[in-house]
Amino acid sequence: MTTLTKNSSGVFPIAPTPFHPDGRVDVASIDKLIDAYLAAGATGVTVLGILGEAPKLEPDESLDIVQRFTKGFGSLPVVVGVSAPGFAAMRLLTRKAMDAGAAGVMIAPLPSLRTDDQIIGYYHQAIEAIGTDIPFVIQDYPLTLSVQMAPKVIRQIVQAQPSCVMLKHEDWPGLEKISTLRAYEAEGSMRRVSILTGNGGLFLDFEMERGADGAMTGYAFPEMLADVVRLQMEGERDAAHDLFDAHLPLLRYEQQQGVGLAVRKYVLAKRGIIACDAQRKPGSALSEKARQEVDYVLKRVSRVDPRASFRSA
Amino acid sequence: MTTLTKNSSGVFPIAPTPFHPDGRVDVASIDKLIDAYLAAGATGVTVLGILGEAPKLEPDESLDIVQRFTKGFGSLPVVVGVSAPGFAAMRLLTRKAMDAGAAGVMIAPLPSLRTDDQIIGYYHQAIEAIGTDIPFVIQDYPLTLSVQMAPKVIRQIVQAQPSCVMLKHEDWPGLEKISTLRAYEAEGSMRRVSILTGNGGLFLDFEMERGADGAMTGYAFPEMLADVVRLQMEGERDAAHDLFDAHLPLLRYEQQQGVGLAVRKYVLAKRGIIACDAQRKPGSALSEKARQEVDYVLKRVSRVDPRASFRSA
Amino acid sequence: MTTLTKNSSGVFPIAPTPFHPDGRVDVASIDKLIDAYLAAGATGVTVLGILGEAPKLEPDESLDIVQRFTKGFGSLPVVVGVSAPGFAAMRLLTRKAMDAGAAGVMIAPLPSLRTDDQIIGYYHQAIEAIGTDIPFVIQDYPLTLSVQMAPKVIRQIVQAQPSCVMLKHEDWPGLEKISTLRAYEAEGSMRRVSILTGNGGLFLDFEMERGADGAMTGYAFPEMLADVVRLQMEGERDAAHDLFDAHLPLLRYEQQQGVGLAVRKYVLAKRGIIACDAQRKPGSALSEKARQEVDYVLKRVSRVDPRASFRSA
Amino acid sequence: MTTLTKNSSGVFPIAPTPFHPDGRVDVASIDKLIDAYLAAGATGVTVLGILGEAPKLEPDESLDIVQRFTKGFGSLPVVVGVSAPGFAAMRLLTRKAMDAGAAGVMIAPLPSLRTDDQIIGYYHQAIEAIGTDIPFVIQDYPLTLSVQMAPKVIRQIVQAQPSCVMLKHEDWPGLEKISTLRAYEAEGSMRRVSILTGNGGLFLDFEMERGADGAMTGYAFPEMLADVVRLQMEGERDAAHDLFDAHLPLLRYEQQQGVGLAVRKYVLAKRGIIACDAQRKPGSALSEKARQEVDYVLKRVSRVDPRASFRSA
Repeated sequence: MTTLTKNSSGVFPIAPTPFHPDGRVDVASIDKLIDAYLAAGATGVTVLGILGEAPKLEPDESLDIVQRFTKGFGSLPVVVGVSAPGFAAMRLLTRKAMDAGAAGVMIAPLPSLRTDDQIIGYYHQAIEAIGTDIPFVIQDYPLTLSVQMAPKVIRQIVQAQPSCVMLKHEDWPGLEKISTLRAYEAEGSMRRVSILTGNGGLFLDFEMERGADGAMTGYAFPEMLADVVRLQMEGERDAAHDLFDAHLPLLRYEQQQGVGLAVRKYVLAKRGIIACDAQRKPGSALSEKARQEVDYVLKRVSRVDPRASFRSA
Repeated sequence: MTTLTKNSSGVFPIAPTPFHPDGRVDVASIDKLIDAYLAAGATGVTVLGILGEAPKLEPDESLDIVQRFTKGFGSLPVVVGVSAPGFAAMRLLTRKAMDAGAAGVMIAPLPSLRTDDQIIGYYHQAIEAIGTDIPFVIQDYPLTLSVQMAPKVIRQIVQAQPSCVMLKHEDWPGLEKISTLRAYEAEGSMRRVSILTGNGGLFLDFEMERGADGAMTGYAFPEMLADVVRLQMEGERDAAHDLFDAHLPLLRYEQQQGVGLAVRKYVLAKRGIIACDAQRKPGSALSEKARQEVDYVLKRVSRVDPRASFRSA
Repeated sequence: MTTLTKNSSGVFPIAPTPFHPDGRVDVASIDKLIDAYLAAGATGVTVLGILGEAPKLEPDESLDIVQRFTKGFGSLPVVVGVSAPGFAAMRLLTRKAMDAGAAGVMIAPLPSLRTDDQIIGYYHQAIEAIGTDIPFVIQDYPLTLSVQMAPKVIRQIVQAQPSCVMLKHEDWPGLEKISTLRAYEAEGSMRRVSILTGNGGLFLDFEMERGADGAMTGYAFPEMLADVVRLQMEGERDAAHDLFDAHLPLLRYEQQQGVGLAVRKYVLAKRGIIACDAQRKPGSALSEKARQEVDYVLKRVSRVDPRASFRSA
Repeated sequence: MTTLTKNSSGVFPIAPTPFHPDGRVDVASIDKLIDAYLAAGATGVTVLGILGEAPKLEPDESLDIVQRFTKGFGSLPVVVGVSAPGFAAMRLLTRKAMDAGAAGVMIAPLPSLRTDDQIIGYYHQAIEAIGTDIPFVIQDYPLTLSVQMAPKVIRQIVQAQPSCVMLKHEDWPGLEKISTLRAYEAEGSMRRVSILTGNGGLFLDFEMERGADGAMTGYAFPEMLADVVRLQMEGERDAAHDLFDAHLPLLRYEQQQGVGLAVRKYVLAKRGIIACDAQRKPGSALSEKARQEVDYVLKRVSRVDPRASFRSA
């Protein structure tokens, strides 16, 4: 039986949704994606996030995707993004996701929230709406959501909501925030929750040293993320940084707002993990120049990590 | 057969959703609300807007509400708010609404849009998603959405999208914007669309003189809005202002962001048009002090407009 | 000796800066403006606010304006707006203002502030910069500044900064905020500060009943504001509302962001209080249509308040 | 005689302001900083930017800093940041800067600007205020300023303002923007301006290949920036990327909003270029943990670039 707990760790890829060039969901590619994630060492997965093009999916499609992932991941937890402008839609999606075998849900604050109490109150209402028995993840992503949660606000939410088991940390900068939260835990003022980091993995190397339990992000080489997490847990600091730094030029390239998904799908398609890099409309595509840049970076990465090598561009 | 056209005019109340104290939709009150709107001279109605607590409704509830209104309004047009973070949800809701007899839909821009071309492109994509044959209303509401549409941006959308038939104008300040748009029309650079104004009606008196065709807003005395629109169309300027000014203290009180709906429901309940002023959770309620203030203002309004008088508070 | 205290009350007009048509500061009109304010019953005045076109003034001009007002107002307090992107400029302006006889300064939060602690910390740093002996006013203006201060944040600033003597309240909606702050005071959790309200005076009628001490705003008929404040303090509730409601159509017209100053200067010029309604570049001007609308409203106001009557437009 | 032209290229460091631990400006360190920049191959410099802690400086201090840099840089251009909430302050600072020998000024849009025409109009007014004969740089920095300038908006400003000679490009993502602007130039619809890139240099490697003329940013190893710019201009693509990638882990660490300046000053102090890493109040400091992280990254960078090596941490 799959669970999401305060001790969940490792790498939860943020799964993109593969499409056929004509816009239909490409279910065969979903299955290959699941296999690739499992082979890469994923310990869970997150679906229907922003980068999963969730807002472009029909309800039935969304549900089908959740079911494929829960089936494919077996006893490993599947987290479903259920952020919504209204609590009715959030509750509905949560119910369907849990019925389909999800291990928990991820909730981002509404972009209009400002004061500390507004944020804390929002999570109170959301949990009241979806049910206090559903394990949930706080998504802390100020860059995109424009909501700033001070560490003590996160602490208040965690303390008030027993069903909160994880923080998706993507504040930027955020290293001190992880240290602060772990210090709260050490001093006993906050109970433990799992911290998986996002922001494309741009600081994963040091985030692990600050106390993160792993990554929840969609970088096109999840095996690199998994290796870095593992090496850091084994105390192989230099080896972790060596591998991370080799990928950093690409990881940085992928971490461009609005372009990132196109880069990610392009690399996944190049790797043969998904059949094509199409996005459902309205989507963006890489320019020819950008594709050449990605190819060039891949070739450079492959000098250190052969998994990034391809026969021909 | 009900239609929404570039010549639609009059008053389209923004309908609140009546609830029982326990949170269930109060269908009996919906029917009374419809009767009250028709008696007040409404020439159409808008449902599932922000003030209709749409994000708290289950899909079935939303659909049922649309059906009740289209049935009740008969040949008069019902506009359905379909703004959504994703085009899939927007398309789905549009289809259901049109199948249920709606005359058109209202679309607000995503709050993250900034440049002129982003806004124009968004409407292009939205119309592509819902279908180019569905009459739609542009909602221009910078105060809440933080998207600023210059008059020439509205013109570009109108010219590019033949299915655009109406502008819900709620920029603030906005009088010059109406004049600019009507001047575009006069000089032949923009085709005519209906302009109904929102913002709680706070400038309806002068908006009519600038070229608006009426109001689309939820003030608790729609008969006042209808009278002002009618008087202005008949050239009875002083009479229109006399009536408007008598209501202005209440209208201004109702036009408080975040409190407005509570005031509106309180007055509608006091008038016996809805059974109670409950909001579905999470909702806000008026303080005792605020209720007394509304009662006091109502008493003052009733000195000029007897329709605002009540036996006892 | 002029002071600003926690008991300051009455009306502090926000003074516009009169200019000649060629852009020079019109010092003769400043003197007439001062006389008009004093005749209207002003108990203080605020200069160099946003509506005073402060950002367009050279440092010497700003200083001269402060000096003219402090001289003209004699023992009545002059508040100087010193909000600035940096603390060096804030400190410099504060020093010059206090040397020129100001009674205190007004400080708005930086628009980028978000969390409660960021706001509280900002005021701590600002007061450290300007000196803990300078009486200051918190400007709480979310609509323009996009900073939301919860009542408890205001309380923390007040309790932490003994030199805070006043709140310029212009949250919207804001009636409950005044009640909450006064309840803090009543229960002993916050010391008393003066609360003067802004937002163009749009809710002054009820703000006085909630516990405000008066108004700090620039409506073109400060005598009306003074009368409403006085009547409410004397318990003449109905008379206060009668007068306020008569002016409400104009007050509402003036309270349009970005247009308000042009309306205000137009009316002040019409009243002969300033020589002309010019704004220094870059400024805005009323359209001919808007001037006619203001004239029309003035005529209507004058039916109740003869002070709004003019021989001919 | 120093000039800033549409052909300016190379590296313009954004200069920090060195302070003594007690908060006084450290003029000796300014001289050492100038020497280090010149030795590193800087072709110009930018002072009084956000990272120069400009808002904390007294007017006399600011002027003195400009003079030291213009004297030290001799015939090389000094750009002065003059962004201000008001045009009076902008004009005053521009005059003083140009009198002190500056080659041009940099102007960022006000954060409140939204529509295309508002942005274009703002630059028109700003240039009218400071004088049409002052060479100026457009700062395009959406991440911090929340103003989004479409390429065609930049084109309109460039075409309308002959005194615009440079774009400080720090949109993110921004590679396609550079390509679009250079394509405008190629097709003859926009005249040439210099494009120097910012954003901490995070994409400098590819920005050079897209058509940038160099970098304007404050990375603590300006010699690396200068080498990458030179290598790319010489066609040594691989060598440019090799050097860039070696520094990327540190460059990325430095590119953390709100922390970056502390990292930068820490490294500059470690390098002996400034005496200490103090910031004037209110400033931020690195935690002990962060200092250790920077030391660790420096050691790793030094394996490829010996200029990053230090005897002992």
